Amino acid sequence: MRIRLIVAALALGMAMTPAFAANKPVRIPDAAMTQAATLREQALTSDLAYRITESITTEVGPRMAGSEGDARAVAWAQAKFKSLGYDRVWTEPVTFPKWERRSERAEVLGRHAQPLVLTALGGSPGGTVEGEVVRFTDLASLEAAPAGSLAGKIVFVDFKMERKRGGDDYGFGSRIRSRGPTTAAAKGAVGYLMQSAGTDSHRMPHTGITRFDEGVKPIPAAALSAPDSRQLSRLVAMGPQRVRLALDCGWDGEATSYNVIGEVRGSSKPDEVVLIGGHLDSWDLGTGAIDDGAGLGITMAAGAMIAKLPKRPARTIRVVAFANEEQGLYGGRAYAAKYEKDVGKHQIAAESDFGAGRIYGYASSLPESAREADEQILQALAPLGIQRLEGRGEGPGPDIGPFAQRGLAWASLAQDGTDYFDLHHTPDDTFDKVDPAAIQQNAAAYAVFAYLAASADGSFGSRPVAPATPAR
Amino acid sequence: MRIRLIVAALALGMAMTPAFAANKPVRIPDAAMTQAATLREQALTSDLAYRITESITTEVGPRMAGSEGDARAVAWAQAKFKSLGYDRVWTEPVTFPKWERRSERAEVLGRHAQPLVLTALGGSPGGTVEGEVVRFTDLASLEAAPAGSLAGKIVFVDFKMERKRGGDDYGFGSRIRSRGPTTAAAKGAVGYLMQSAGTDSHRMPHTGITRFDEGVKPIPAAALSAPDSRQLSRLVAMGPQRVRLALDCGWDGEATSYNVIGEVRGSSKPDEVVLIGGHLDSWDLGTGAIDDGAGLGITMAAGAMIAKLPKRPARTIRVVAFANEEQGLYGGRAYAAKYEKDVGKHQIAAESDFGAGRIYGYASSLPESAREADEQILQALAPLGIQRLEGRGEGPGPDIGPFAQRGLAWASLAQDGTDYFDLHHTPDDTFDKVDPAAIQQNAAAYAVFAYLAASADGSFGSRPVAPATPAR
Repeated sequence: MRIRLIVAALALGMAMTPAFAANKPVRIPDAAMTQAATLREQALTSDLAYRITESITTEVGPRMAGSEGDARAVAWAQAKFKSLGYDRVWTEPVTFPKWERRSERAEVLGRHAQPLVLTALGGSPGGTVEGEVVRFTDLASLEAAPAGSLAGKIVFVDFKMERKRGGDDYGFGSRIRSRGPTTAAAKGAVGYLMQSAGTDSHRMPHTGITRFDEGVKPIPAAALSAPDSRQLSRLVAMGPQRVRLALDCGWDGEATSYNVIGEVRGSSKPDEVVLIGGHLDSWDLGTGAIDDGAGLGITMAAGAMIAKLPKRPARTIRVVAFANEEQGLYGGRAYAAKYEKDVGKHQIAAESDFGAGRIYGYASSLPESAREADEQILQALAPLGIQRLEGRGEGPGPDIGPFAQRGLAWASLAQDGTDYFDLHHTPDDTFDKVDPAAIQQNAAAYAVFAYLAASADGSFGSRPVAPATPAR
Repeated sequence: MRIRLIVAALALGMAMTPAFAANKPVRIPDAAMTQAATLREQALTSDLAYRITESITTEVGPRMAGSEGDARAVAWAQAKFKSLGYDRVWTEPVTFPKWERRSERAEVLGRHAQPLVLTALGGSPGGTVEGEVVRFTDLASLEAAPAGSLAGKIVFVDFKMERKRGGDDYGFGSRIRSRGPTTAAAKGAVGYLMQSAGTDSHRMPHTGITRFDEGVKPIPAAALSAPDSRQLSRLVAMGPQRVRLALDCGWDGEATSYNVIGEVRGSSKPDEVVLIGGHLDSWDLGTGAIDDGAGLGITMAAGAMIAKLPKRPARTIRVVAFANEEQGLYGGRAYAAKYEKDVGKHQIAAESDFGAGRIYGYASSLPESAREADEQILQALAPLGIQRLEGRGEGPGPDIGPFAQRGLAWASLAQDGTDYFDLHHTPDDTFDKVDPAAIQQNAAAYAVFAYLAASADGSFGSRPVAPATPAR
């Protein structure tokens, strides 16, 4: 999932930089700055984050929310936290609707008969449909189609995302996935195809969640790989094309999984929490290496390296492996609901969920009163090649979004995501795509950040805020 | 298919550079050299090869030998030759055993249960087998395993090919595919898995033909994608692993397809033939763009550009779209058998079947008596960035191999194949992988070569040679 973009969804409902009550200036003690520099250099010689990522992707493999793999991932995370020397390890249940993928296929019919490589979107119903393809180049043109004009048709949106360091085009691609099917269904379409929300040119379809509006009858909805989308576009340009789409998938009751939490207890202010983490679930097609095995590897390693220091920082470091991020931030929402009254005890949170590319930027929601500490953190991150990002567009990671919406302070350690959407939600999201040196730099940055945030004197500005819209 | 490596298979049986009877020196007239220069520059502004490749990959799509797509490809090739202005277009039947792929899946069983992405090797029988995995790192170590030592096991060879311009590692990879399954079966194995004979790191398995020796009971045999192979290697390193392999595929009777042939008739020596071409069939997983839609695009465009010149060259240019190359050079062998007595009328042949990368090298079997013409051809190719390759390791393309074995002179226009084995025999062999500028350079080179060879005065040295081993 994308760090900055989730903000777009939450921005209307949250106070991004609340006007905090005047706090006393926040500072990080000199001794902690010295310790952080040592920690940073040690972390740059450790392969722990890489090995944790290898472990979950190899030993557990795919772990779609509610699946047997997901249950094994919960057991894996508990055992891994314990073996890494965390002080406390526990789970918190998270219940959600369960979606299953069984089979999927499609083919062009007629004189150019050929199979198409695609994958069902999460949340798609099953069914076999056949119809003439109507092509749109973006969501706006689909939205502009007259009511009823798509009766009996298969809608096809072939928007192509471009590679960008910040993954900016995912804003378009993810909306074509989330809003396209319900829009097409509302206008009478019997099926929905889209060019995958991705930037690669391989025969790799990208899945991801979609939802249908109340009152709209869901239709089978799937993403074509980029080559298949381009192929279908060429065929449609030659003349009318009929496609058969056969999906066997759908919602099937409820499942319960777990947020798995490990703590490195603070030495003097153990009730004050610095939260880092990633999400435990993955899509089913790959083994969830960049999304989000790497995020777990990075943050679990960061906590473990702090746990091994001669002296613990003042505050507690809590590493959370969130349940079911992919299908609707269920773990993050459950966490926010459970700890709603403890916003003030949570000092700050940062989530790693944008792959394993090098971190190049730092941004935070810290108030003016914590500016000195914020600068100190940046100063300790600078040797890793990390510079301040001006806040516009930056925000908390997806799973801490619901809690940030309730007033939690956040930091963002922005990763280079140039190739993130080559792999995101595809079968190709596998361990071999993780660069050992880049993930090492990530773990060093999270270790430094968490250690310093847990060593600061004074508040980072978290305090209860009533969300303008209900958290979902 | 790989140009140089086919030679390894044929070398024992053929006279590579026969000691020709003294011929009078062969030369290309100056006027033809001037015309060739103009043709070359015109070809570098033409997108014809690119458009022909687009046409077959889009309108026909996959065309595995004997399939419905193959039949459409035959019709496509006839129509395309005609529309391109070829003088004569005809087909010649080629009959072969038909192999079909219906479904394929595999999974690791037990505590690390997870699916594996793979594809059946062409020629594999169907069947569901389950067994403990025994890993080998290369074919030699499998061959060294004691008889019977693999009873009930699933053999797994995880040799990794490296990227090289000439595709050299395919020599190892293709032998692991062709010899591994029969070797494993002979030692009692119930199934066979290999890391795909490829150089990519995507979840793209590479298919390709395998054969079982007489008296060996065939076993299900499949290629894992590179990430899946590495995953299985990591799991096996942790402890014993059991895998279930379920393939539904196999031989099913005979099929007849066709060599499709188009001719641009020579102006003064129409019975002397310069043969260029590629193969019409593809594997079923991709749309056969680099293997070998591009070869057809390049050579069909080259012939068409020559057909449009104000004056035809002296000799006939024959472009052959060979049937069923992939499963055993059936089209090439049928052609050689049919025209066995006409070796002397065929002046020279060159096949394009190594993708669409830029041509960097030229080699030929021409005798000393034709050295001047050979140098003239090279001189006309030089502005395209093509240099002479010293002959060692170079040879005719696969489909002209059987005829070369009977004495046909050949030329090789060696393409940069650095990324060829990223795509070869995978779902990813699609039109978007073809670089328009590179295929243009290829078509220019083939046009220049064919035009000059068809304009030369004197023999290129083709003459009947009894093959030392039966052509197959």
